[in-house]
Amino acid sequence: MKLATFDAGNGAEVGIVVVEMIIPLTRVKPQLAPSMIGLIQNWAAAKAEVEGIAAKGEGALLLSSVRLLAPIPRPGKIWAIGLNYADHIAESNMEAPKNQVWFSKAASSVNGPYDPIELPSVPTPHVDYEAELVAVIGAGGRHILAANAPDAIFGYCVGNDVTERAWQHSGPQWSLGKSFDTHAPFGPWIVTADEIPDPHSLGIRCLVNGETRQQSNTQHLVFNLWDQIAHLSSAMTLEPGDVIYTGTPGGIGAAMKPMQFLADGDVVRVEIDGIGMIEASCKADGRA
Amino acid sequence: MKLATFDAGNGAEVGIVVVEMIIPLTRVKPQLAPSMIGLIQNWAAAKAEVEGIAAKGEGALLLSSVRLLAPIPRPGKIWAIGLNYADHIAESNMEAPKNQVWFSKAASSVNGPYDPIELPSVPTPHVDYEAELVAVIGAGGRHILAANAPDAIFGYCVGNDVTERAWQHSGPQWSLGKSFDTHAPFGPWIVTADEIPDPHSLGIRCLVNGETRQQSNTQHLVFNLWDQIAHLSSAMTLEPGDVIYTGTPGGIGAAMKPMQFLADGDVVRVEIDGIGMIEASCKADGRA
Repeated sequence: MKLATFDAGNGAEVGIVVVEMIIPLTRVKPQLAPSMIGLIQNWAAAKAEVEGIAAKGEGALLLSSVRLLAPIPRPGKIWAIGLNYADHIAESNMEAPKNQVWFSKAASSVNGPYDPIELPSVPTPHVDYEAELVAVIGAGGRHILAANAPDAIFGYCVGNDVTERAWQHSGPQWSLGKSFDTHAPFGPWIVTADEIPDPHSLGIRCLVNGETRQQSNTQHLVFNLWDQIAHLSSAMTLEPGDVIYTGTPGGIGAAMKPMQFLADGDVVRVEIDGIGMIEASCKADGRA
Repeated sequence: MKLATFDAGNGAEVGIVVVEMIIPLTRVKPQLAPSMIGLIQNWAAAKAEVEGIAAKGEGALLLSSVRLLAPIPRPGKIWAIGLNYADHIAESNMEAPKNQVWFSKAASSVNGPYDPIELPSVPTPHVDYEAELVAVIGAGGRHILAANAPDAIFGYCVGNDVTERAWQHSGPQWSLGKSFDTHAPFGPWIVTADEIPDPHSLGIRCLVNGETRQQSNTQHLVFNLWDQIAHLSSAMTLEPGDVIYTGTPGGIGAAMKPMQFLADGDVVRVEIDGIGMIEASCKADGRA
Protein backbone atom coordinates (compact mmCIF):
# COMPACT_ATOMS: atom_id res chain seq x y z
CA MET A 1 0.00 0.00 0.00
CA LYS A 2 1.08 3.56 -0.70
CA LEU A 3 0.17 6.05 2.02
CA ALA A 4 0.60 9.79 1.53
CA THR A 5 0.07 13.00 3.42
CA PHE A 6 -1.56 15.60 1.19
CA ASP A 7 -3.13 19.04 1.20
CA ALA A 8 -6.26 19.66 -0.86
CA GLY A 9 -6.99 23.02 0.72
CA ASN A 10 -7.98 21.72 4.16
CA GLY A 11 -4.55 21.29 5.69
CA ALA A 12 -2.71 17.99 6.07
CA GLU A 13 -4.74 14.84 5.44
CA VAL A 14 -3.72 11.20 5.09
CA GLY A 15 -4.61 9.27 1.97
CA ILE A 16 -4.14 5.99 0.18
CA VAL A 17 -2.59 6.26 -3.28
CA VAL A 18 -4.08 3.87 -5.85
CA VAL A 19 -2.59 4.36 -9.30
CA GLU A 20 -3.58 7.94 -10.23
CA MET A 21 -6.10 8.45 -7.45
CA ILE A 22 -5.82 9.22 -3.74
CA ILE A 23 -8.47 8.05 -1.27
CA PRO A 24 -8.75 10.60 1.57
CA LEU A 25 -8.57 8.32 4.59
CA THR A 26 -8.81 11.23 7.02
CA ARG A 27 -12.23 12.12 5.55
CA VAL A 28 -13.57 8.57 5.26
CA LYS A 29 -12.64 7.66 8.83
CA PRO A 30 -10.96 10.50 10.74
CA GLN A 31 -10.24 8.56 13.91
CA LEU A 32 -8.27 5.99 11.92
CA ALA A 33 -5.82 8.50 10.50
CA PRO A 34 -5.75 11.79 12.41
CA SER A 35 -2.20 12.08 11.03
CA MET A 36 0.30 9.69 9.48
CA ILE A 37 1.99 9.16 12.86
CA GLY A 38 -1.45 8.47 14.37
CA LEU A 39 -2.16 5.91 11.65
CA ILE A 40 1.20 4.23 12.17
CA GLN A 41 0.59 4.02 15.92
CA ASN A 42 -2.80 2.35 15.22
CA TRP A 43 -1.56 0.23 12.33
CA ALA A 44 -1.92 -3.25 13.83
CA ALA A 45 -5.61 -2.60 14.55
CA ALA A 46 -6.28 -0.38 11.51
CA LYS A 47 -4.60 -2.25 8.67
CA ALA A 48 -7.50 -4.48 7.61
CA GLU A 49 -9.98 -1.60 7.67
CA VAL A 50 -7.61 0.63 5.67
CA GLU A 51 -7.30 -2.13 3.08
CA GLY A 52 -11.08 -2.30 2.88
CA ILE A 53 -11.30 1.46 2.35
CA ALA A 54 -8.62 1.24 -0.34
CA ALA A 55 -10.62 -1.46 -2.14
CA LYS A 56 -13.85 0.59 -2.08
CA GLY A 57 -12.18 3.77 -3.26
CA GLU A 58 -14.73 6.03 -1.51
CA GLY A 59 -14.28 9.75 -2.18
CA ALA A 60 -11.20 9.24 -4.34
CA LEU A 61 -9.52 12.39 -5.65
CA LEU A 62 -7.25 12.75 -8.63
CA LEU A 63 -3.71 12.48 -7.30
CA SER A 64 -2.74 15.30 -9.65
CA SER A 65 -5.31 17.58 -7.99
CA VAL A 66 -3.69 17.55 -4.54
CA ARG A 67 -0.35 18.73 -3.21
CA LEU A 68 1.68 15.95 -1.63
CA LEU A 69 3.43 16.88 1.62
CA ALA A 70 6.21 14.91 3.22
CA PRO A 71 4.50 11.72 4.42
CA ILE A 72 5.46 12.66 8.00
CA PRO A 73 5.54 16.45 8.18
CA ARG A 74 7.12 16.52 11.66
CA PRO A 75 8.90 13.31 12.65
CA GLY A 76 9.87 12.86 16.29
CA LYS A 77 13.42 12.35 15.11
CA ILE A 78 15.40 12.05 11.89
CA TRP A 79 18.69 10.15 11.90
CA ALA A 80 20.97 9.81 8.90
CA ILE A 81 24.00 7.56 8.52
CA GLY A 82 27.13 8.92 6.86
CA LEU A 83 29.79 7.15 4.81
CA ASN A 84 27.67 4.11 4.09
CA TYR A 85 28.47 3.24 0.43
CA ALA A 86 32.06 2.31 -0.49
CA ASP A 87 32.18 4.61 -3.54
CA HIS A 88 30.94 7.57 -1.48
CA ILE A 89 33.54 6.88 1.22
CA ALA A 90 36.24 6.88 -1.45
CA GLU A 91 35.09 10.09 -3.14
CA SER A 92 34.97 11.76 0.29
CA ASN A 93 38.63 10.84 0.86
CA MET A 94 37.63 9.08 4.06
CA GLU A 95 38.41 5.65 5.45
CA ALA A 96 35.61 3.18 5.96
CA PRO A 97 34.38 3.85 9.52
CA LYS A 98 34.70 1.05 12.04
CA ASN A 99 31.45 2.06 13.69
CA GLN A 100 28.29 3.48 12.20
CA VAL A 101 28.49 7.29 11.87
CA TRP A 102 25.17 9.01 12.59
CA PHE A 103 24.08 12.62 12.45
CA SER A 104 20.65 14.21 12.70
CA LYS A 105 18.50 16.38 10.49
CA ALA A 106 16.19 18.82 12.29
CA ALA A 107 12.45 18.08 12.13
CA SER A 108 12.00 21.61 10.81
CA SER A 109 14.08 20.75 7.72
CA VAL A 110 11.40 18.37 6.37
CA ASN A 111 10.17 19.29 2.90
CA GLY A 112 7.49 18.02 0.55
CA PRO A 113 8.49 15.64 -2.27
CA TYR A 114 8.01 18.24 -5.01
CA ASP A 115 8.61 21.46 -3.05
CA PRO A 116 11.51 23.83 -3.79
CA ILE A 117 14.84 23.38 -2.06
CA GLU A 118 16.20 26.61 -0.60
CA LEU A 119 19.71 27.69 -1.55
CA PRO A 120 20.58 29.88 1.43
CA SER A 121 22.88 32.87 1.21
CA VAL A 122 25.39 31.90 3.92
CA PRO A 123 27.16 33.78 2.25
CA THR A 124 27.69 31.53 -0.79
CA PRO A 125 25.51 28.46 -1.12
CA HIS A 126 27.29 25.11 -1.31
CA VAL A 127 24.16 23.02 -1.43
CA ASP A 128 24.52 19.40 -2.54
CA TYR A 129 22.20 16.43 -3.09
CA GLU A 130 22.41 12.95 -1.56
CA ALA A 131 19.97 10.33 -2.87
CA GLU A 132 18.92 7.98 -0.07
CA LEU A 133 16.52 5.20 0.77
CA VAL A 134 14.44 6.40 3.74
CA ALA A 135 12.93 3.98 6.25
CA VAL A 136 9.96 4.96 8.42
CA ILE A 137 9.74 3.35 11.85
CA GLY A 138 6.54 1.47 12.65
CA ALA A 139 6.38 -0.44 15.91
CA GLY A 140 9.93 0.61 16.73
CA GLY A 141 11.23 -0.20 20.19
CA ARG A 142 14.48 -0.42 22.15
CA HIS A 143 17.23 -3.01 21.96
CA ILE A 144 15.97 -4.45 18.69
CA LEU A 145 18.06 -7.33 17.37
CA ALA A 146 19.05 -7.10 13.71
CA ALA A 147 17.10 -10.32 13.12
CA ASN A 148 13.94 -8.62 14.39
CA ALA A 149 14.54 -5.24 12.74
CA PRO A 150 12.20 -5.85 9.77
CA ASP A 151 9.29 -5.95 12.25
CA ALA A 152 10.19 -2.45 13.46
CA ILE A 153 9.81 -0.83 10.03
CA PHE A 154 6.56 0.61 8.72
CA GLY A 155 7.65 1.38 5.19
CA TYR A 156 9.96 3.15 2.77
CA CYS A 157 10.31 6.46 0.96
CA VAL A 158 12.66 8.19 -1.46
CA GLY A 159 14.78 10.83 0.28
CA ASN A 160 17.28 13.55 -0.51
CA ASP A 161 19.71 14.29 2.33
CA VAL A 162 20.30 17.85 1.10
CA THR A 163 23.49 19.23 2.59
CA GLU A 164 25.09 22.66 2.92
CA ARG A 165 28.71 21.50 2.47
CA ALA A 166 30.40 24.67 3.73
CA TRP A 167 28.40 24.46 6.96
CA GLN A 168 28.84 20.70 7.21
CA HIS A 169 32.60 21.15 7.19
CA SER A 170 32.84 24.45 9.11
CA GLY A 171 33.62 22.42 12.22
CA PRO A 172 33.71 18.83 13.45
CA GLN A 173 29.94 18.26 13.64
CA TRP A 174 27.78 17.82 10.56
CA SER A 175 24.19 18.06 11.86
CA LEU A 176 23.72 21.82 11.47
CA GLY A 177 24.86 21.74 7.83
CA LYS A 178 22.28 18.99 7.28
CA SER A 179 19.39 20.87 8.92
CA PHE A 180 18.62 23.94 6.83
CA ASP A 181 14.93 24.58 6.24
CA THR A 182 13.69 22.52 3.24
CA HIS A 183 16.76 20.25 3.26
CA ALA A 184 15.02 17.01 4.25
CA PRO A 185 12.63 16.25 1.39
CA PHE A 186 11.21 12.74 1.34
CA GLY A 187 8.24 10.91 -0.12
CA PRO A 188 6.37 10.99 -2.37
CA TRP A 189 4.52 8.47 -0.19
CA ILE A 190 5.33 5.62 2.16
CA VAL A 191 5.34 2.21 0.49
CA THR A 192 4.45 -0.19 3.29
CA ALA A 193 7.13 -2.72 4.15
CA ASP A 194 5.08 -5.73 2.97
CA GLU A 195 5.49 -4.44 -0.62
CA ILE A 196 9.29 -4.19 -0.35
CA PRO A 197 10.35 -7.73 0.49
CA ASP A 198 14.04 -6.79 0.35
CA PRO A 199 15.06 -3.15 0.89
CA HIS A 200 18.65 -4.17 0.08
CA SER A 201 18.13 -4.70 -3.65
CA LEU A 202 16.70 -1.42 -4.89
CA GLY A 203 18.13 0.65 -7.73
CA ILE A 204 18.67 4.27 -6.64
CA ARG A 205 19.49 7.30 -8.80
CA CYS A 206 19.90 11.06 -8.56
CA LEU A 207 19.54 13.27 -11.62
CA VAL A 208 20.29 16.99 -11.85
CA ASN A 209 18.63 18.71 -14.83
CA GLY A 210 18.23 15.25 -16.38
CA GLU A 211 21.92 14.30 -16.00
CA THR A 212 22.50 11.15 -13.95
CA ARG A 213 24.78 12.01 -11.02
CA GLN A 214 24.28 9.05 -8.69
CA GLN A 215 23.37 5.52 -9.77
CA SER A 216 23.68 2.59 -7.42
CA ASN A 217 21.74 -0.10 -5.61
CA THR A 218 20.92 -0.44 -1.93
CA GLN A 219 22.69 -3.82 -2.00
CA HIS A 220 25.87 -1.76 -1.62
CA LEU A 221 25.04 -0.34 1.82
CA VAL A 222 28.05 -0.87 4.10
CA PHE A 223 25.90 -1.17 7.24
CA ASN A 224 22.58 -2.58 6.17
CA LEU A 225 19.27 -1.31 7.51
CA TRP A 226 18.88 -4.12 10.01
CA ASP A 227 22.24 -3.34 11.59
CA GLN A 228 21.33 0.35 11.57
CA ILE A 229 18.11 -0.34 13.50
CA ALA A 230 19.95 -2.55 15.98
CA HIS A 231 22.62 0.09 16.58
CA LEU A 232 20.27 3.07 16.97
CA SER A 233 17.90 1.16 19.23
CA SER A 234 20.68 0.08 21.54
CA ALA A 235 20.91 3.77 22.47
CA MET A 236 17.33 4.95 22.22
CA THR A 237 13.72 4.01 21.73
CA LEU A 238 12.71 4.19 18.07
CA GLU A 239 9.16 5.45 17.84
CA PRO A 240 6.36 5.32 15.24
CA GLY A 241 7.08 7.78 12.45
CA ASP A 242 10.77 8.27 13.20
CA VAL A 243 12.69 8.66 9.96
CA ILE A 244 15.99 7.00 9.00
CA TYR A 245 18.10 8.14 6.02
CA THR A 246 20.17 5.08 5.14
CA GLY A 247 23.18 6.62 3.35
CA THR A 248 24.08 7.95 -0.08
CA PRO A 249 26.12 6.36 -2.90
CA GLY A 250 28.96 8.02 -4.80
CA GLY A 251 28.39 10.89 -7.18
CA ILE A 252 27.82 13.91 -4.97
CA GLY A 253 28.47 17.35 -6.44
CA ALA A 254 31.24 18.14 -3.95
CA ALA A 255 33.29 15.23 -5.33
CA MET A 256 33.00 16.27 -9.00
CA LYS A 257 35.93 17.99 -10.69
CA PRO A 258 35.27 20.85 -10.69
CA MET A 259 32.80 20.77 -7.82
CA GLN A 260 29.19 21.27 -8.87
CA PHE A 261 26.87 22.73 -6.28
CA LEU A 262 23.17 23.23 -6.86
CA ALA A 263 22.26 26.52 -8.55
CA ASP A 264 19.09 28.57 -8.75
CA GLY A 265 16.66 26.82 -11.07
CA ASP A 266 18.36 23.42 -11.04
CA VAL A 267 15.97 20.49 -10.91
CA VAL A 268 17.01 17.59 -8.66
CA ARG A 269 15.27 14.26 -8.98
CA VAL A 270 15.80 11.16 -6.81
CA GLU A 271 14.35 7.81 -7.91
CA ILE A 272 14.22 4.45 -6.17
CA ASP A 273 12.91 1.34 -7.93
CA GLY A 274 9.65 0.10 -6.46
CA ILE A 275 9.00 3.30 -4.49
CA GLY A 276 8.84 6.27 -6.86
CA MET A 277 10.57 9.59 -7.30
CA ILE A 278 10.81 13.02 -5.68
CA GLU A 279 11.77 16.11 -7.64
CA ALA A 280 12.54 19.67 -6.57
CA SER A 281 13.59 22.89 -8.18
CA CYS A 282 16.28 24.85 -6.35
CA LYS A 283 15.52 28.39 -5.35
CA ALA A 284 17.95 31.03 -4.09
CA ASP A 285 16.61 32.63 -0.93
CA GLY A 286 17.11 36.06 -2.45
CA ARG A 287 18.73 37.60 0.62
CA ALA A 288 21.52 40.06 -0.08
CA MET B 1 6.61 33.33 36.25
CA LYS B 2 7.51 29.65 36.68
CA LEU B 3 5.68 27.30 34.32
CA ALA B 4 5.86 23.54 34.75
CA THR B 5 4.55 20.40 33.10
CA PHE B 6 3.34 17.94 35.73
CA ASP B 7 1.53 14.66 36.21
CA ALA B 8 -0.98 14.30 39.02
CA GLY B 9 -2.43 11.05 37.76
CA ASN B 10 -4.18 12.48 34.68
CA GLY B 11 -1.27 12.62 32.29
CA ALA B 12 0.70 15.72 31.39
CA GLU B 13 -0.79 19.05 32.50
CA VAL B 14 0.63 22.56 32.50
CA GLY B 15 0.79 24.52 35.75
CA ILE B 16 2.05 27.75 37.29
CA VAL B 17 4.44 27.28 40.20
CA VAL B 18 3.93 29.77 43.05
CA VAL B 19 6.26 29.09 45.96
CA GLU B 20 5.23 25.61 47.16
CA MET B 21 2.01 25.37 45.17
CA ILE B 22 1.20 24.62 41.55
CA ILE B 23 -1.90 26.06 39.87
CA PRO B 24 -3.18 23.58 37.26
CA LEU B 25 -3.62 25.89 34.27
CA THR B 26 -4.76 23.01 32.03
CA ARG B 27 -7.73 22.43 34.39
CA VAL B 28 -8.61 26.10 34.99
CA LYS B 29 -8.60 26.96 31.28
CA PRO B 30 -7.78 23.99 29.04
CA GLN B 31 -7.77 25.90 25.75
CA LEU B 32 -5.10 28.25 27.11
CA ALA B 33 -2.60 25.51 27.84
CA PRO B 34 -3.36 22.24 26.02
CA SER B 35 0.40 21.63 26.39
CA MET B 36 3.43 23.75 27.18
CA ILE B 37 4.17 24.16 23.48
CA GLY B 38 0.54 25.18 22.92
CA LEU B 39 0.83 27.76 25.71
CA ILE B 40 4.08 29.14 24.27
CA GLN B 41 2.47 29.44 20.83
CA ASN B 42 -0.44 31.40 22.40
CA TRP B 43 1.75 33.37 24.81
CA ALA B 44 1.30 36.89 23.42
CA ALA B 45 -2.48 36.58 23.73
CA ALA B 46 -2.50 34.41 26.85
CA LYS B 47 0.06 36.07 29.13
CA ALA B 48 -2.24 38.56 30.89
CA GLU B 49 -4.89 35.91 31.54
CA VAL B 50 -2.27 33.46 32.86
CA GLU B 51 -1.02 36.14 35.23
CA GLY B 52 -4.57 36.66 36.46
CA ILE B 53 -5.00 32.94 37.08
CA ALA B 54 -1.68 32.88 38.94
CA ALA B 55 -2.86 35.74 41.17
CA LYS B 56 -6.15 33.98 42.03
CA GLY B 57 -4.52 30.63 42.75
CA GLU B 58 -7.64 28.65 41.76
CA GLY B 59 -7.37 24.91 42.34
CA ALA B 60 -3.78 25.11 43.59
CA LEU B 61 -2.13 21.78 44.43
CA LEU B 62 0.83 21.18 46.69
CA LEU B 63 3.89 21.14 44.45
CA SER B 64 5.20 18.21 46.49
CA SER B 65 2.08 16.20 45.61
CA VAL B 66 2.69 16.13 41.86
CA ARG B 67 5.41 14.65 39.67
CA LEU B 68 7.19 17.25 37.58
CA LEU B 69 7.89 16.20 34.00
CA ALA B 70 10.30 17.93 31.67
CA PRO B 71 8.63 21.29 30.93
CA ILE B 72 8.49 20.30 27.25
CA PRO B 73 8.16 16.52 27.10
CA ARG B 74 8.73 16.35 23.32
CA PRO B 75 10.46 19.40 21.85
CA GLY B 76 10.45 19.80 18.09
CA LYS B 77 14.22 19.95 18.24
CA ILE B 78 17.01 20.03 20.80
CA TRP B 79 20.32 21.62 19.86
CA ALA B 80 23.35 21.71 22.13
CA ILE B 81 26.57 23.67 21.64
CA GLY B 82 29.89 22.00 22.40
CA LEU B 83 33.17 23.49 23.64
CA ASN B 84 31.61 26.71 24.87
CA TYR B 85 33.46 27.46 28.15
CA ALA B 86 37.24 28.04 28.06
CA ASP B 87 37.95 25.69 30.99
CA HIS B 88 35.94 22.89 29.38
CA ILE B 89 37.75 23.37 26.05
CA ALA B 90 41.09 23.11 27.90
CA GLU B 91 40.12 19.98 29.87
CA SER B 92 38.92 18.37 26.63
CA ASN B 93 42.36 18.95 25.05
CA MET B 94 40.69 20.85 22.23
CA GLU B 95 41.37 24.20 20.65
CA ALA B 96 38.78 26.93 20.88
CA PRO B 97 36.58 26.42 17.82
CA LYS B 98 36.48 29.22 15.26
CA ASN B 99 32.82 28.54 14.56
CA GLN B 100 30.06 27.39 16.87
CA VAL B 101 29.99 23.56 17.19
CA TRP B 102 26.47 22.17 17.42
CA PHE B 103 25.12 18.67 17.90
CA SER B 104 21.62 17.41 18.62
CA LYS B 105 19.96 15.43 21.36
CA ALA B 106 17.03 13.23 20.28
CA ALA B 107 13.57 14.32 21.44
CA SER B 108 13.16 10.82 22.88
CA SER B 109 16.07 11.45 25.29
CA VAL B 110 14.10 14.05 27.28
CA ASN B 111 13.77 13.20 30.96
CA GLY B 112 11.95 14.70 33.94
CA PRO B 113 13.91 16.92 36.34
CA TYR B 114 13.96 14.34 39.15
CA ASP B 115 13.69 11.11 37.14
CA PRO B 116 16.44 8.47 37.09
CA ILE B 117 19.22 8.64 34.51
CA GLU B 118 19.81 5.32 32.77
CA LEU B 119 23.33 3.89 32.75
CA PRO B 120 23.16 1.69 29.67
CA SER B 121 25.12 -1.53 29.28
CA VAL B 122 26.89 -0.73 26.01
CA PRO B 123 28.86 -2.79 27.12
CA THR B 124 30.41 -0.65 29.87
CA PRO B 125 28.69 2.60 30.76
CA HIS B 126 30.77 5.77 30.42
CA VAL B 127 27.99 8.15 31.37
CA ASP B 128 28.97 11.70 32.30
CA TYR B 129 27.18 14.87 33.41
CA GLU B 130 27.27 18.33 31.84
CA ALA B 131 25.55 21.15 33.72
CA GLU B 132 24.00 23.63 31.29
CA LEU B 133 21.73 26.62 31.10
CA VAL B 134 18.82 25.65 28.82
CA ALA B 135 16.92 28.24 26.78
CA VAL B 136 13.40 27.56 25.52
CA ILE B 137 12.40 29.23 22.26
CA GLY B 138 9.29 31.42 22.34
CA ALA B 139 8.44 33.35 19.21
CA GLY B 140 11.51 32.00 17.46
CA GLY B 141 11.91 32.73 13.78
CA ARG B 142 14.49 32.67 10.99
CA HIS B 143 17.43 35.00 10.40
CA ILE B 144 17.23 36.50 13.88
CA LEU B 145 19.86 39.17 14.54
CA ALA B 146 21.79 38.80 17.80
CA ALA B 147 20.36 42.17 18.85
CA ASN B 148 16.83 40.78 18.50
CA ALA B 149 17.55 37.35 19.98
CA PRO B 150 16.16 38.14 23.46
CA ASP B 151 12.72 38.54 21.88
CA ALA B 152 12.94 34.98 20.50
CA ILE B 153 13.36 33.36 23.93
CA PHE B 154 10.46 32.22 26.09
CA GLY B 155 12.40 31.29 29.21
CA TYR B 156 15.11 29.30 30.93
CA CYS B 157 15.62 25.94 32.62
CA VAL B 158 18.36 23.98 34.33
CA GLY B 159 19.69 21.18 32.13
CA ASN B 160 22.04 18.22 32.23
CA ASP B 161 23.53 17.28 28.85
CA VAL B 162 24.09 13.68 29.92
CA THR B 163 26.62 12.02 27.64
CA GLU B 164 27.75 8.47 26.92
CA ARG B 165 31.44 9.29 26.36
CA ALA B 166 32.42 6.00 24.71
CA TRP B 167 29.64 6.42 22.16
CA GLN B 168 30.35 10.14 21.74
CA HIS B 169 33.91 9.33 20.74
CA SER B 170 33.32 6.05 18.89
CA GLY B 171 33.43 8.03 15.65
CA PRO B 172 33.49 11.60 14.41
CA GLN B 173 29.89 12.53 15.26
CA TRP B 174 28.69 13.13 18.81
CA SER B 175 24.89 13.25 18.52
CA LEU B 176 24.19 9.55 19.06
CA GLY B 177 26.27 9.47 22.27
CA LYS B 178 24.21 12.44 23.46
CA SER B 179 20.83 10.86 22.69
CA PHE B 180 20.36 7.84 24.94
CA ASP B 181 16.94 7.54 26.52
CA THR B 182 16.74 9.66 29.73
CA HIS B 183 19.89 11.64 28.83
CA ALA B 184 18.26 15.04 28.32
CA PRO B 185 16.81 15.99 31.70
CA PHE B 186 15.79 19.61 32.10
CA GLY B 187 13.52 21.69 34.29
CA PRO B 188 12.32 21.74 36.96
CA TRP B 189 10.20 24.47 35.32
CA ILE B 190 10.60 27.26 32.80
CA VAL B 191 11.37 30.63 34.37
CA THR B 192 9.98 33.14 31.88
CA ALA B 193 12.55 35.43 30.29
CA ASP B 194 11.18 38.59 31.95
CA GLU B 195 12.42 37.21 35.30
CA ILE B 196 15.97 36.62 34.01
CA PRO B 197 17.09 40.05 32.88
CA ASP B 198 20.57 38.78 32.03
CA PRO B 199 21.08 35.07 31.28
CA HIS B 200 24.81 35.74 31.07
CA SER B 201 25.37 36.28 34.79
CA LEU B 202 24.04 33.11 36.42
CA GLY B 203 26.00 30.89 38.80
CA ILE B 204 25.89 27.25 37.63
CA ARG B 205 26.98 24.15 39.52
CA CYS B 206 26.96 20.36 39.23
CA LEU B 207 27.24 18.15 42.30
CA VAL B 208 27.67 14.37 42.36
CA ASN B 209 26.74 12.79 45.68
CA GLY B 210 27.10 16.23 47.25
CA GLU B 211 30.60 16.84 45.88
CA THR B 212 30.90 19.96 43.71
CA ARG B 213 32.23 18.92 40.29
CA GLN B 214 31.37 21.94 38.15
CA GLN B 215 31.12 25.54 39.39
CA SER B 216 31.04 28.45 37.00
CA ASN B 217 28.96 31.33 35.75
CA THR B 218 27.20 31.79 32.43
CA GLN B 219 29.21 35.00 31.96
CA HIS B 220 31.98 32.65 30.78
CA LEU B 221 30.11 31.35 27.71
CA VAL B 222 32.43 31.64 24.69
CA PHE B 223 29.56 32.18 22.24
CA ASN B 224 26.78 33.87 24.16
CA LEU B 225 23.14 32.92 23.78
CA TRP B 226 22.33 35.80 21.44
CA ASP B 227 25.07 34.73 19.02
CA GLN B 228 23.85 31.13 19.34
CA ILE B 229 20.31 32.15 18.34
CA ALA B 230 21.61 34.21 15.43
CA HIS B 231 23.76 31.34 14.16
CA LEU B 232 21.13 28.59 14.47
CA SER B 233 18.42 30.74 12.90
CA SER B 234 20.57 31.60 9.91
CA ALA B 235 20.19 27.91 9.01
CA MET B 236 16.72 27.06 10.23
CA THR B 237 13.48 28.32 11.68
CA LEU B 238 13.48 28.20 15.47
CA GLU B 239 10.03 27.27 16.68
CA PRO B 240 8.07 27.63 19.93
CA GLY B 241 9.28 25.07 22.45
CA ASP B 242 12.57 24.25 20.74
CA VAL B 243 15.26 23.64 23.34
CA ILE B 244 18.83 24.98 23.35
CA TYR B 245 21.55 23.61 25.64
CA THR B 246 24.06 26.45 25.90
CA GLY B 247 27.27 24.63 26.81
CA THR B 248 28.95 23.17 29.90
CA PRO B 249 31.81 24.53 32.03
CA GLY B 250 34.90 22.59 33.11
CA GLY B 251 34.75 19.75 35.61
CA ILE B 252 33.32 16.82 33.66
CA GLY B 253 34.01 13.32 34.94
CA ALA B 254 35.92 12.31 31.80
CA ALA B 255 38.53 15.00 32.54
CA MET B 256 39.15 13.94 36.15
CA LYS B 257 42.25 11.95 36.98
CA PRO B 258 41.36 9.14 37.23
CA MET B 259 38.22 9.50 35.13
CA GLN B 260 35.00 9.32 37.14
CA PHE B 261 31.93 8.13 35.28
CA LEU B 262 28.50 7.95 36.86
CA ALA B 263 27.78 4.75 38.76
CA ASP B 264 24.62 2.99 39.86
CA GLY B 265 23.06 4.93 42.72
CA ASP B 266 25.01 8.16 42.19
CA VAL B 267 22.96 11.31 42.68
CA VAL B 268 23.62 14.12 40.18
CA ARG B 269 22.35 17.60 40.93
CA VAL B 270 22.55 20.66 38.67
CA GLU B 271 21.78 24.11 40.07
CA ILE B 272 21.49 27.50 38.39
CA ASP B 273 20.99 30.67 40.40
CA GLY B 274 17.59 32.24 39.86
CA ILE B 275 16.13 29.15 38.18
CA GLY B 276 16.35 26.16 40.53
CA MET B 277 17.80 22.69 40.54
CA ILE B 278 17.28 19.28 38.96
CA GLU B 279 18.46 16.08 40.62
CA ALA B 280 18.57 12.48 39.42
CA SER B 281 19.73 9.17 40.73
CA CYS B 282 21.61 6.99 38.27
CA LYS B 283 20.29 3.54 37.54
CA ALA B 284 22.02 0.72 35.71
CA ASP B 285 19.73 -0.72 33.06
CA GLY B 286 20.31 -4.19 34.40
CA ARG B 287 20.88 -5.84 31.02
CA ALA B 288 23.47 -8.56 30.93
